[in-house]
Amino acid sequence: MSGPFIAVDWGTTNRRAYLIEQGEVVATERDDMGILSVPAGCFPAAVADLRARHGGLPMLLAGMVGSNRGWHDAGYVAAPAGIAQVAARLVSPEDGVAIVPGVCRDSDGRQDVMRGEEVQLLGAVAAGLAPADALLCQPGTHAKWAAMKDGALADFSTAMTGEMFAMLKAHSLIGAEMTGEVDADDEFVRGVEASGDNDLLAALFGVRAASVLGKRAPGAAAAYVSGLLLGTDCRARIGAGQTVHLLADGLLARLYSAAIATVGGEAVVVDSHASFVAGITRIWDMKA
Amino acid sequence: MSGPFIAVDWGTTNRRAYLIEQGEVVATERDDMGILSVPAGCFPAAVADLRARHGGLPMLLAGMVGSNRGWHDAGYVAAPAGIAQVAARLVSPEDGVAIVPGVCRDSDGRQDVMRGEEVQLLGAVAAGLAPADALLCQPGTHAKWAAMKDGALADFSTAMTGEMFAMLKAHSLIGAEMTGEVDADDEFVRGVEASGDNDLLAALFGVRAASVLGKRAPGAAAAYVSGLLLGTDCRARIGAGQTVHLLADGLLARLYSAAIATVGGEAVVVDSHASFVAGITRIWDMKA
Repeated sequence: MSGPFIAVDWGTTNRRAYLIEQGEVVATERDDMGILSVPAGCFPAAVADLRARHGGLPMLLAGMVGSNRGWHDAGYVAAPAGIAQVAARLVSPEDGVAIVPGVCRDSDGRQDVMRGEEVQLLGAVAAGLAPADALLCQPGTHAKWAAMKDGALADFSTAMTGEMFAMLKAHSLIGAEMTGEVDADDEFVRGVEASGDNDLLAALFGVRAASVLGKRAPGAAAAYVSGLLLGTDCRARIGAGQTVHLLADGLLARLYSAAIATVGGEAVVVDSHASFVAGITRIWDMKA
Repeated sequence: MSGPFIAVDWGTTNRRAYLIEQGEVVATERDDMGILSVPAGCFPAAVADLRARHGGLPMLLAGMVGSNRGWHDAGYVAAPAGIAQVAARLVSPEDGVAIVPGVCRDSDGRQDVMRGEEVQLLGAVAAGLAPADALLCQPGTHAKWAAMKDGALADFSTAMTGEMFAMLKAHSLIGAEMTGEVDADDEFVRGVEASGDNDLLAALFGVRAASVLGKRAPGAAAAYVSGLLLGTDCRARIGAGQTVHLLADGLLARLYSAAIATVGGEAVVVDSHASFVAGITRIWDMKA
């Protein structure tokens, strides 16, 4: 096992750093200094600050910090990709600092990319939190669904599920009805069930029609629309009896668990932070 | 046949008036005084102006002017509805002026509404521009698909197709790629074909991935996304060999004709203005 290092999950809006010694997290910090909060040219200083706070140890960064909108473009490794393939392609923008590449897929005319999620996905399997052959889901703004085979990331797809919800709420005809709290309640499940009609564009207009005709309680539309979208997302990827390992907690874990169960699958919730730590540690150990 | 009258197709953003004598249009005007341009309380004056310009004839209004956001809520007639059912439920906010009600459907847990489109749909069949038993489509921001039976509007659904395109272009992650012109070209057809994967949420994210991986020419994404959305819309409603009578012209007629053909159907373009005139004239003739 290699020496201690600082692992950073550096996303678009947030950043979480872990001081890892012998595979164990001995310190952690989280802030809102995502890549959008770092002015152009200021990444070296931001990295130096972080290193100084943690004994000047070497660093391994993952996430959008390695995109062309971040500090340094770390490129993509093509799926199928295991920890060894990812570790072999680390990019080092300066001495003592490396960035994990993203993963892409491009075949059968379908393109997809991820950046940061690969560490959690590979780590979940490496740590035994999910089987070596499994369907993993990391829900969010862009929900990642990964088919793992022999412990490697064999293939994946990304659904614009969370972004679609936010966009409908902020900018659509039905946004004005989407005022209530979202949780995995009856109205959410009704939305998941309605997604079985396989007609999302009409179901969304139906939210307006239900309101006009007084058929849905004010405030209930947000949960229904969430159910419609998560149901549409899940139905495109899972069938009856399918087990999904879900890298999520809190509300997202509740919502996706309910949606997966409603369409006939079964969700197993996996600790996404433990998965990240397991993944980044193994990449660190295996690096050249 | 009843006497001359002024027919107005009064929508959200535009308004078109027809002076109709013995079933023929003898004058027409179009402006951008949709209901959103008429200040609260000013509808009587706007109507009086229009009447004065056309000899003070009686008026029959259709469209969003009869919604709760317009002048006077004209309610909804439940589908199935023919011209007689619609004509029997005209609402008169003042002497010499009547408003056509909308049409709603509410069964099997699915609600839908239309307001204004019913005049075109019923008129197309009444004028012989479409058969008495047919599937009609009026594409747009909210695309209306109507099943006509024995000349009546038997059932319908509304897809948020045009609104979704506009929202994605203005507000989504992929909006920045959607810069090119949309037409029924190869990239549009590729989008219609891709909609056959029945996974719209992932196909939309794929637009971003294709751009990141350099797999789509800059400017080509708008046509592709349009194809994805129209293909999704059409596949939810038509199968191979289905004929669709399309109340559209120009670009929308080209796009929907291509999408319908790509999914195995056949489009017949119908004159939507002639359909409106035929529908509103028959409603006028049949009114109490």
